[in-house]
Amino acid sequence: MSTRTEHDFIGELNIPNNLYYGVQTSRAINNFHISTRTLENYPFFIKALAQIKKAAALANKEVGVLKPELADAIASACDKIIEGNFVNQFPVDMLQGGAGTSTNMNANEVIANIGLEILGHQKGEYQFLHPNDHVNLSQSTNDSYPSSIKVAAYTKLTDLLTAMEDLKVNLLKKSVEFKDILKMGRTELEDAVPTTLGNTFEAFATYIDTSIHQISHARETMKFLNMGATAIGTGINCHPDYKHVIEKELHNITGINYQIADNLIAATQDTADFVYVSGALKTLAVRLSKIANDLRLMNSGPRCGLGEINLPKMQPGSSIMPGKVNPVIAEVVAEACYEVMGNDVSITLCAERGELELNAFEPGIAYALFNSICLLENAINTLSTKAIKDLTANTDICYNSIMNSISIVTALNPYIGYEKSSSIAKEALQTGKAVSEICLERGYLTEKQLTDILNPKTMLTPHMGTK
Amino acid sequence: MSTRTEHDFIGELNIPNNLYYGVQTSRAINNFHISTRTLENYPFFIKALAQIKKAAALANKEVGVLKPELADAIASACDKIIEGNFVNQFPVDMLQGGAGTSTNMNANEVIANIGLEILGHQKGEYQFLHPNDHVNLSQSTNDSYPSSIKVAAYTKLTDLLTAMEDLKVNLLKKSVEFKDILKMGRTELEDAVPTTLGNTFEAFATYIDTSIHQISHARETMKFLNMGATAIGTGINCHPDYKHVIEKELHNITGINYQIADNLIAATQDTADFVYVSGALKTLAVRLSKIANDLRLMNSGPRCGLGEINLPKMQPGSSIMPGKVNPVIAEVVAEACYEVMGNDVSITLCAERGELELNAFEPGIAYALFNSICLLENAINTLSTKAIKDLTANTDICYNSIMNSISIVTALNPYIGYEKSSSIAKEALQTGKAVSEICLERGYLTEKQLTDILNPKTMLTPHMGTK
Amino acid sequence: MSTRTEHDFIGELNIPNNLYYGVQTSRAINNFHISTRTLENYPFFIKALAQIKKAAALANKEVGVLKPELADAIASACDKIIEGNFVNQFPVDMLQGGAGTSTNMNANEVIANIGLEILGHQKGEYQFLHPNDHVNLSQSTNDSYPSSIKVAAYTKLTDLLTAMEDLKVNLLKKSVEFKDILKMGRTELEDAVPTTLGNTFEAFATYIDTSIHQISHARETMKFLNMGATAIGTGINCHPDYKHVIEKELHNITGINYQIADNLIAATQDTADFVYVSGALKTLAVRLSKIANDLRLMNSGPRCGLGEINLPKMQPGSSIMPGKVNPVIAEVVAEACYEVMGNDVSITLCAERGELELNAFEPGIAYALFNSICLLENAINTLSTKAIKDLTANTDICYNSIMNSISIVTALNPYIGYEKSSSIAKEALQTGKAVSEICLERGYLTEKQLTDILNPKTMLTPHMGTK
Amino acid sequence: MSTRTEHDFIGELNIPNNLYYGVQTSRAINNFHISTRTLENYPFFIKALAQIKKAAALANKEVGVLKPELADAIASACDKIIEGNFVNQFPVDMLQGGAGTSTNMNANEVIANIGLEILGHQKGEYQFLHPNDHVNLSQSTNDSYPSSIKVAAYTKLTDLLTAMEDLKVNLLKKSVEFKDILKMGRTELEDAVPTTLGNTFEAFATYIDTSIHQISHARETMKFLNMGATAIGTGINCHPDYKHVIEKELHNITGINYQIADNLIAATQDTADFVYVSGALKTLAVRLSKIANDLRLMNSGPRCGLGEINLPKMQPGSSIMPGKVNPVIAEVVAEACYEVMGNDVSITLCAERGELELNAFEPGIAYALFNSICLLENAINTLSTKAIKDLTANTDICYNSIMNSISIVTALNPYIGYEKSSSIAKEALQTGKAVSEICLERGYLTEKQLTDILNPKTMLTPHMGTK
Repeated sequence: MSTRTEHDFIGELNIPNNLYYGVQTSRAINNFHISTRTLENYPFFIKALAQIKKAAALANKEVGVLKPELADAIASACDKIIEGNFVNQFPVDMLQGGAGTSTNMNANEVIANIGLEILGHQKGEYQFLHPNDHVNLSQSTNDSYPSSIKVAAYTKLTDLLTAMEDLKVNLLKKSVEFKDILKMGRTELEDAVPTTLGNTFEAFATYIDTSIHQISHARETMKFLNMGATAIGTGINCHPDYKHVIEKELHNITGINYQIADNLIAATQDTADFVYVSGALKTLAVRLSKIANDLRLMNSGPRCGLGEINLPKMQPGSSIMPGKVNPVIAEVVAEACYEVMGNDVSITLCAERGELELNAFEPGIAYALFNSICLLENAINTLSTKAIKDLTANTDICYNSIMNSISIVTALNPYIGYEKSSSIAKEALQTGKAVSEICLERGYLTEKQLTDILNPKTMLTPHMGTK
Repeated sequence: MSTRTEHDFIGELNIPNNLYYGVQTSRAINNFHISTRTLENYPFFIKALAQIKKAAALANKEVGVLKPELADAIASACDKIIEGNFVNQFPVDMLQGGAGTSTNMNANEVIANIGLEILGHQKGEYQFLHPNDHVNLSQSTNDSYPSSIKVAAYTKLTDLLTAMEDLKVNLLKKSVEFKDILKMGRTELEDAVPTTLGNTFEAFATYIDTSIHQISHARETMKFLNMGATAIGTGINCHPDYKHVIEKELHNITGINYQIADNLIAATQDTADFVYVSGALKTLAVRLSKIANDLRLMNSGPRCGLGEINLPKMQPGSSIMPGKVNPVIAEVVAEACYEVMGNDVSITLCAERGELELNAFEPGIAYALFNSICLLENAINTLSTKAIKDLTANTDICYNSIMNSISIVTALNPYIGYEKSSSIAKEALQTGKAVSEICLERGYLTEKQLTDILNPKTMLTPHMGTK
Repeated sequence: MSTRTEHDFIGELNIPNNLYYGVQTSRAINNFHISTRTLENYPFFIKALAQIKKAAALANKEVGVLKPELADAIASACDKIIEGNFVNQFPVDMLQGGAGTSTNMNANEVIANIGLEILGHQKGEYQFLHPNDHVNLSQSTNDSYPSSIKVAAYTKLTDLLTAMEDLKVNLLKKSVEFKDILKMGRTELEDAVPTTLGNTFEAFATYIDTSIHQISHARETMKFLNMGATAIGTGINCHPDYKHVIEKELHNITGINYQIADNLIAATQDTADFVYVSGALKTLAVRLSKIANDLRLMNSGPRCGLGEINLPKMQPGSSIMPGKVNPVIAEVVAEACYEVMGNDVSITLCAERGELELNAFEPGIAYALFNSICLLENAINTLSTKAIKDLTANTDICYNSIMNSISIVTALNPYIGYEKSSSIAKEALQTGKAVSEICLERGYLTEKQLTDILNPKTMLTPHMGTK
Repeated sequence: MSTRTEHDFIGELNIPNNLYYGVQTSRAINNFHISTRTLENYPFFIKALAQIKKAAALANKEVGVLKPELADAIASACDKIIEGNFVNQFPVDMLQGGAGTSTNMNANEVIANIGLEILGHQKGEYQFLHPNDHVNLSQSTNDSYPSSIKVAAYTKLTDLLTAMEDLKVNLLKKSVEFKDILKMGRTELEDAVPTTLGNTFEAFATYIDTSIHQISHARETMKFLNMGATAIGTGINCHPDYKHVIEKELHNITGINYQIADNLIAATQDTADFVYVSGALKTLAVRLSKIANDLRLMNSGPRCGLGEINLPKMQPGSSIMPGKVNPVIAEVVAEACYEVMGNDVSITLCAERGELELNAFEPGIAYALFNSICLLENAINTLSTKAIKDLTANTDICYNSIMNSISIVTALNPYIGYEKSSSIAKEALQTGKAVSEICLERGYLTEKQLTDILNPKTMLTPHMGTK
């Protein structure tokens, strides 16, 4: 295979001519064999890098520091990447030292070489279009890398929000479908008072709705970029107008009104907004695993559990127990949530370890954050389509649980007081007698009163007796 | 000591007559010897419980389900507690089973007995004012306990925000004081390009400002209460108008516009908003420990470290090394932050473990959440007054670090390109020569140009050469 | 109140004459208002500090660097503390900067002043017995503080192990009591194959036994102290024989064969053994919360849950639902475990933040580690005595769950193969017919064969049919 | 492409004939699109699955429940997989519901179809060799899946230990090379007393040595398998001798003396040993990140930091700052450690969520645990070869830091006492005078005494003056 020779500060390397990346990417491949997950596995991040690079090139052109033909070549090269090409030219491990320099240089090198070909040159002829002097012009890794992470995160959070909306819709459909299915409410796993299965699914939908608001809010923090900050936020080597122009260019390219942060020093060194986003994701994970585990509880059985609902049967549940079906979708959803909760700790640690003018561990943040968002998006789509959509209820089992229970005695409180009600409950538990029977025997209330008061439907809404 | 006999569902107990709490509190004391931190250690929580109970009593009066004289006795009893009395009557361990029933009953019993005395009765004469039938009327632990947690959290978050505002002001004062102190910026602990010490403190202030917004936003979630939900959110045993009236009463009592959640089923079982708040607190902790650890780095020395700043000397630093002074305030602030990060995991686990109509682990959430807020408030006040306020700078050391550095070569990029600059840097590092000297020797730029370009002040703002 | 004047490197302070602590403790009280939990709340730690100080004094006497009368006065003072006196003279916040200097100086000052009184002097007359020159002789905070943490941890881990042994015994008793109670085994909450309630409790006992071994092993790491290391491990200002002698003295005082680490540099800066211990504690917490949550599941009901066991009724379960009893002990045990899991993260963060020759965050480690050990000890004792000891079984419910189930079809596999068994299971689920009935109808096996094969007791042990 | 039709409990599916996996694997591919990391990415796990399946087949043959020709076909099929073939036939997502049933069935199906070809049949002709009835004979997912995880973990932990031994050797080499390089010891980042760079690296080696012991110990827990437990530990459908025979077979196949756990009920449901292993891994991560971050601190500069050592230059450090070199290897090592610390939380959550007779979240445990081991192995190998091996020291900078310091005043304590030493330190700091100069001026000690006492080499070992 033919090669070209490239050099950097460290020395020379031969690069196969078919490769669009160059010497610094090659060093990074050699240096970082850590997670074995590369940029290739995160195409939305590659796209965001290209969007940032394109915006920078066009801004540089507009403020007059980059020749139009070079800027346009860079922009065209970026467009090819944005369209989904050249993904396999991003082989650098996501976990890397250097605060993302290797990722930024991977992008700079690939864009430079695509641009060189567009301009009619050979790959590696950097005298015509240079990864640092032109593609990276007015930039540092320290602004373009975290800005790309934010653009990628914003994009994927939007995908996640779409998935959440779908899930909410599916949950609400079920809440309507199940609105008349009476079932026992349980607190601390103990029989409490009646509710409906519709209430359960409406509550689930409400959780998701709350998290939609919280994640949307957290997503806003991803809009504040530090382009124009260059190395540490002072904007060294950057035209004063550049940061205003690049806002506009980014809007043109992405349709999103990204803004340049007011304090670029802070924006360059403070990665805590990623922790904030992760906190909102973890909050969603808590809600999602609650739903998944409640589904498992209500689905438990078929004969020796609660048996209130039927999750769709997705696959045989056992290699030894014939006919067993497990709630595999609910399980994998919870499992994904537990990964997200662990990622939150990783993100916290990486963010906490920033020092002075920069956080060296941004690649660790990006890795864990992207994994969390993707896990949640995949888990939610899986839950919607493979568990919620075709879920059915066992109406009789649900209803009988109320009829069989003692705890409906609660409804007697406003009429006979907490202490007499307690005494009835105690007797019912010991003797197996029905609550109404004991109450009648003791002469506390008439049969007519009891029929009214102990009607489960009455217990479903605020309603107060008079003593 | 004289005693009275009280009974509950389980049986009878003798209670010393001087105690305001009763049988259920006594059982809880016996059952829960876990954290050894009791409600007494959290007086703001006791106050919140009394605020909730007072609001409930007045709402019950207004909707006509509680006799005015009883409601007024309850309200007066609550007022005494709100004023700070009876704290020692709340001896229950913060960590408890029963989803807070013991805390709720502790409040119900103490309020009932204070109320009985107000009404001219003896403690324990519950036939006149009953902990359950009157004080707890229209309530369940499952609404009044989490609502009290939220009111307490809102209150303490407000205190925390006040502390944060003070810290921000102190940081901004320092940023003004230090605005002309040039110092080396460092990325990944390596020499980068010049900045000012003022920039550093302004960035710190910006962090805190960002977290003020985020915590204020998160605090809003604490406004949505589930009063009127009773046992599981269906509002069983609760007058339909009660939840509207109690909003108004709570506003009168607290001055805050708490609102009753739209979906009371969800509001009763979903504790993830506490995780969201904790996420915002952890984000603050990440920022705060970054500040604390940066202060430690800049203060390192006095002779063998960076030595850029002087934290106030608070105490001797060593039992063996005379004259040693350690950055004890910065250290304890970071330490508090690490506790907060651990608490976030505890809160997550407790919230994740909710099942069906309730989360049994709310007491674990309250414990860790209150600890986090108090730790952060204490740490921030300590940092402001004992580290930031009297911090001084070593101007000469700061300035000399720039003059001594190679990395100012960055400013040459726009004039001679990245590759020539790299070569100069390499030679400077190997030979010890100054950057300007090498550049002049090689004839890249004139002395006049170099003086302009390498002026550190020029490097502090966006500024672009022309090639 | 009369006062004495003390001074340190920072300046002078007036100290009330009744106090045994002095100037440096007073500064610490003022500096650290963070967790509001002081040394007083951890008397076993105060005891360990005194044990270390006594051993140092006696070792100093033996190697000839401390006058016998001073050494003996220090030892006598320490004995008073070891016996449980003077606890209220340790008012310093557990969370402190300075890597424990304030705790070490608190001990040095209190011991010096008790010693001065023993010698017939006044408190504060340090010319006769000095906190640093005599009590702290041959020591630094950097050796005596972490060594005291280790001695305290070792002691409390021993208490924890005792509690674990008790729990194991109680679980084994139940496993014998319940050995013949057949019940349905469940995997992924779905009906699986028969087991016994005795098996369940024997498995629980096995968990605890495994953790006893693991925690005993981890406890061994607490035996390696760095006394003699002084400031950074080089042993500056320490007699070469001291570290050998102090081993012997510590053994005399504590009965435990503590050893001085081979590499004192490493032992002074490496706090990861605390993370290792915390990892073993967290592993126990995982097992303990599994037990607690399984108890809650099996106890769920009384009518609408699994209802297999009855946890002792400890207190009324609801302020609104009469007669409701919740599994409060199981709940608080799980809650304590979730705190421990959070503490593990705090300990990790503090340990991870050590730098160069010392870890400044040892106080954060001690705080979270002691809390974890105490929480687990309290939770385990509570579980043993309030949940396991008087737990009863619902034999009929357990048995009927098997008889009612489909999944016993598993036992047919060796006779008719997995596919035919699956088909029977499917039909049983759809039609409600019994497994044996369908198998008979299809002529796969005879009634006699089915009676043998489907006997639940046969399924309880390894047993293989022949095809 | 030609296909075959396979069916299961759920229904029929067409499977392309070139695929070795079958219907249940196909369902799993469809069901689980969560992490996007499949079994293929963990070839050591695929190998372990085959080792377990081979051992089971041979044990089945020996106890007489499986025809020899079928057992041998299975064993031969497994051998092909053990040799590294068929990796691409394992496309199931590592994160899956069903407690690993999909992974187990993937292995069963692939082995069955390879075995069928060995026997001269077509893929899918399961009447001759059945995935469940023959390959999975005497097994359940619930024993073979966790046992395979343990075998895989044991194997990778062994690789990790090898990497740790290499690192230790490299660190010890450096400790010898640097044994005479005097440098300032720092506690809490403040100047303390002298040490050597050799001490620093010897301490690092000691950390690793300690973790080698701890991880070796933890690895032992992975030896206890639950083969023979089948569904829930009772051993249903398993020959009584099988579990003894399979121990021997596993030893033949792997060379490791895996043992069958005494209590198979506990071994099937208790996953906490994975938490224990993860705790030991996290402890290593704490040590490793301490080393990495200390390297970064000592390497900081080149001009404005500590500048004591030179990490090898691996790649250009900045896209904007020419000549900048960052400690990229140290950074990526710390980053990997932060991922491991997050994984520890994920593993804890998954393990904590086990219920009754099984833990449904074992796939989540395997995923995070394997990731942690691989991250640490990769990070350690990278650190050894790319950071430690060619690291150099700046001897003069190290030495000058001592000569320049005040804190050597510590050595005067035994001669003049702590208080006079403190006073000298204070004056030295204020005036810039040398410690020896002030001491001489004050007439405390003679020049000869001072020269002896303040010799840094004297301070490197235990050494005590006489007052």
